[in-house]
Amino acid sequence: MHIDSLLPEFVLDRVLREDSSYKSITLLGKIKDQYCIIVAEKTAFDTNALSAISQPEAINLDLENNIYHRAFVALKSDAFKLPSAKYSIIYPATEVHIAKYTAQKKRMIAETPELYTNVVQPYIQTMLGSRIDWVFNILKHEAEVDRILFEDTDPVQGFILLPDLKWDGKTLSALYMCAIVHRRDLQSLRDLRGEHIGFLQHLKEESQAAVKAKYGLEASQLRLYIHYQPSYYHLHIHVQSSDAEAGEGLAAGKAWLLDDDIALYIG
Amino acid sequence: MHIDSLLPEFVLDRVLREDSSYKSITLLGKIKDQYCIIVAEKTAFDTNALSAISQPEAINLDLENNIYHRAFVALKSDAFKLPSAKYSIIYPATEVHIAKYTAQKKRMIAETPELYTNVVQPYIQTMLGSRIDWVFNILKHEAEVDRILFEDTDPVQGFILLPDLKWDGKTLSALYMCAIVHRRDLQSLRDLRGEHIGFLQHLKEESQAAVKAKYGLEASQLRLYIHYQPSYYHLHIHVQSSDAEAGEGLAAGKAWLLDDDIALYIG
Repeated sequence: MHIDSLLPEFVLDRVLREDSSYKSITLLGKIKDQYCIIVAEKTAFDTNALSAISQPEAINLDLENNIYHRAFVALKSDAFKLPSAKYSIIYPATEVHIAKYTAQKKRMIAETPELYTNVVQPYIQTMLGSRIDWVFNILKHEAEVDRILFEDTDPVQGFILLPDLKWDGKTLSALYMCAIVHRRDLQSLRDLRGEHIGFLQHLKEESQAAVKAKYGLEASQLRLYIHYQPSYYHLHIHVQSSDAEAGEGLAAGKAWLLDDDIALYIG
Repeated sequence: MHIDSLLPEFVLDRVLREDSSYKSITLLGKIKDQYCIIVAEKTAFDTNALSAISQPEAINLDLENNIYHRAFVALKSDAFKLPSAKYSIIYPATEVHIAKYTAQKKRMIAETPELYTNVVQPYIQTMLGSRIDWVFNILKHEAEVDRILFEDTDPVQGFILLPDLKWDGKTLSALYMCAIVHRRDLQSLRDLRGEHIGFLQHLKEESQAAVKAKYGLEASQLRLYIHYQPSYYHLHIHVQSSDAEAGEGLAAGKAWLLDDDIALYIG
């Protein structure tokens, strides 16, 4: 029996997560006594069907002030041609799935040297080794070879620049590359010292030049930054179009501009 | 004649802006030879109508892999009870409106001392005076008095803490306050010096305490930051829930963590 015919039997348990900016919501419920997670997200407006916007099915004008008007509308919707939402449905779902899709609270932590030594560094040690084999596979040309945009093979100054998986490879305004360094002694931003300034400058300039050559974007159209904490502990730099939409990955406290990192060590 | 009855006569000229993450699109068109701008944004899921999610009007299952399913759906829609979109309509619109609503390209600029002296500082001078009377109205208790959460009236150390207009005043996970300083010699982040460390620490601690007392959020649940460039040139600090959704205003290159600013001047 297909999930679509089971969906009407969904009995809501609770909302796991919601995001009013991105217009998404994640529901936990049960179908036939087994957990089901629905991740629902409204669709973007279809630029191939723009007339649907000015021809809504119904309009409720709720505010008028001179030339400014606000209205709520019902849009035409069709699961095949003009879907109003995209669902990801996990069924049957386990407790692990439920934990993964449950909203997490965020805390801001000022990381002192003591905190780094006593808590973060031991944690980083558990994240090395075979957990990041996929990074070494890229560096050793055992995976994603055809995706490499630029490589400097020098063991100290070298790095590989390749598209981030989140990028569609086409939309220039969302261009997103990743520079993964060849050297293995730098796990994160915390390992950078004054001696690495030349290395970072080199990586920055070569990356900017490679993106310019292939995609035509100027240096000033790119935002280069480092995540701390990163999702994996092998130094890598994010190279993204300055027009890219700002989200969690770009937030102050998570993303650190490469230029600032360099300026701090120089200054 | 009301805008809602004119809307069907809308003839599309071009798309001014679109945002696939936020599910919004801005169209320029004409109605009876006058420009009309439609800013359309899909609505967030209504948490009062959750059953509508599991009971869509139609479902198109397009992917099945073990427990994972993806589907496109047509949701029930009603301009009054379950609107699918919110429209802001500007009609008749002028060239100024069109420029305002047209997507702008962003550039990353490393601001040198020369650039600051020769370009930014002269610009800042044009942004002072009566342009920021609304800020002085707040500081002089001539406006928004009933919105003040905390005030230290000292002319040097003092500031006013009040809710940002973007906050609904209720949703704690989106809490957003603004601390506006009483002193008038600090226009932006660029004016901060080592001598201001105590002032910033004081502002930080008093703001955290005031938010804790009124809303129960701990210091670690708040993100304090300064915009550069800011939208107005009188020093103000953003105090936001660390759970708030990250957007343009939080992006690295625009938002500077207060703790980092303090650490830089100390270090």
